[in-house]
Amino acid sequence: MKLFARAVALTTLLLFPLGAALADALPSWNDGAAKAAIQSFVQKVTDPASKDFVRPEERIAVFDNDGTLWVEQPMYTQLAFALDRVRELAPQHPEWQQNPVLRAAIDGDLKTVAAAGEKGLLELVMATHAGMTPAAFQKIVTDWLAKAEHPRFKKKYTDLVYQPMLELLAYLRENGFTTYIVSGGGIEFMRPWSEAVYGVIPAQVVGSSIKTRFEMVDGKPALVREPSLNFIDDGAGKPVGINQHIGQRPIAAFGNSDGDLQMLQWTTAGQGPRFGLIVHHTDAEREYAYDRKSAFGHLDKALDAAPGQGWTVVDMKSDWKTIFPPAK
Amino acid sequence: MKLFARAVALTTLLLFPLGAALADALPSWNDGAAKAAIQSFVQKVTDPASKDFVRPEERIAVFDNDGTLWVEQPMYTQLAFALDRVRELAPQHPEWQQNPVLRAAIDGDLKTVAAAGEKGLLELVMATHAGMTPAAFQKIVTDWLAKAEHPRFKKKYTDLVYQPMLELLAYLRENGFTTYIVSGGGIEFMRPWSEAVYGVIPAQVVGSSIKTRFEMVDGKPALVREPSLNFIDDGAGKPVGINQHIGQRPIAAFGNSDGDLQMLQWTTAGQGPRFGLIVHHTDAEREYAYDRKSAFGHLDKALDAAPGQGWTVVDMKSDWKTIFPPAK
Repeated sequence: MKLFARAVALTTLLLFPLGAALADALPSWNDGAAKAAIQSFVQKVTDPASKDFVRPEERIAVFDNDGTLWVEQPMYTQLAFALDRVRELAPQHPEWQQNPVLRAAIDGDLKTVAAAGEKGLLELVMATHAGMTPAAFQKIVTDWLAKAEHPRFKKKYTDLVYQPMLELLAYLRENGFTTYIVSGGGIEFMRPWSEAVYGVIPAQVVGSSIKTRFEMVDGKPALVREPSLNFIDDGAGKPVGINQHIGQRPIAAFGNSDGDLQMLQWTTAGQGPRFGLIVHHTDAEREYAYDRKSAFGHLDKALDAAPGQGWTVVDMKSDWKTIFPPAK
Repeated sequence: MKLFARAVALTTLLLFPLGAALADALPSWNDGAAKAAIQSFVQKVTDPASKDFVRPEERIAVFDNDGTLWVEQPMYTQLAFALDRVRELAPQHPEWQQNPVLRAAIDGDLKTVAAAGEKGLLELVMATHAGMTPAAFQKIVTDWLAKAEHPRFKKKYTDLVYQPMLELLAYLRENGFTTYIVSGGGIEFMRPWSEAVYGVIPAQVVGSSIKTRFEMVDGKPALVREPSLNFIDDGAGKPVGINQHIGQRPIAAFGNSDGDLQMLQWTTAGQGPRFGLIVHHTDAEREYAYDRKSAFGHLDKALDAAPGQGWTVVDMKSDWKTIFPPAK
């Protein structure tokens, strides 16, 4: 009978969602309204006896990346990558000197680059992210991330992810959710590392993209990245990207800027239990404090909308015990 | 001890993949080269001791839909749907009389519709598939499929799926594969029923699409389908669609026409064990016999390429014991 009890215990352990067994799946979250709201939502949608129960197939949660899962200051990581690439490739492209944005990037004149806005950013991306296969591009990204350092924290960018959000991703998955990244960043810039860092497989990454064409190269089939915009997965593009990739309306959305406004609106306007959350960067000491006046991660309309929409606003300074994962 | 043994048996049953326990997971396939090739491929990529072992995360299989998973004669099901929609909506659109393709569709002049080729098909789709939310469109599709009948078999279209391919989809999933549909058909035409019929969730359906825009309608966020082409997921578009949606190169591809040629090429050109399969429609009695001369499911170049590429060609007449699932 003792053996039998152990076998039953083993069966229970193997079959029960791990989250249910753990005392606290969100140890880096201080007790407070934000943590309580998350737990209460997860509890009611997973409890078969609850009127708000949601089948696992419908438990879809979408996460913005820049500023929601990892640091986006003093600039988007992908912009830092693009600037490094421009400087590296410039000797082979004398024609870039004729382009004001590219020349500014080469000269390190970030003000001119920033002043060119989204269009300038796109020019940088077209120049540096195209002309190779997706596999070759992903290798370039991987190699860069392995050596690039954040200017303030002197750490790899992939170490500057938010520990409380990593716990949240895992907690949701343990409770039967499928977690997607839905980012304005490049889809193929994120895919090489999203599984190792976030536990999110390539197929569950949605992002902006340039066009890709199929062709035979030396008799072998290949995909080639083209210097032509395909889709901007930001703002009103996020619900569109979600619909295209996932084909279902999420029940929970997590963001940090006005670029996430429509994703939050569309997610939480659905019928049944819904959850919206905004990470508010309030911690200049441990990370950064910014919102309405920031060029990156501009948060204004979504912050105003939050109370009326019932969205949870995370005050990074008071809600998060730690910001980054412990050093490995 | 008896109880203990039962508990262990229960644990085993719950933890082992079902496929391993079954004597024959492909009962509708006659013993022959095609069935043997499928089984041998699955065996080697799932055996941890094999040099050809592939991690479950990389076990991605892509399936064309029309002619590979369900009947595509005497015309694509989606075309039958579009023609019915054109006729139903025509009274509200007198302007359609000015368009030769739409007028031909209204008059039942299929020759003119067919002669207009892909462009004509697109005009039909734009006219009948746009101007509503994705949810509203999916309801229209669901309602149509519930009552429409195939002209020859007098059955619902969703009953005219291939039983051997349903078994193959399930067999692959039982062996740790993720199965995707990658079709030239409309992504939102397939998603409403792909899970119930094929066990393929909406996020794992890749297809052609029209553009969708986000907007606020009466203060509520909504997506609206636009009469504007977004992406054609056919031919050279298939590897592009796979790369965009899945972000990984599949290890197995299943098709039946030249529209699947590049998907087969790209899939099987990858390193490591690869599998390509073409369903050859050779059974005029139980289904249809067509290849090089057919307007729908034209199979010519891919059939010629198969032997040299090592792709398995299914002879429907001799390889399949039954074609359609038993009547419910």
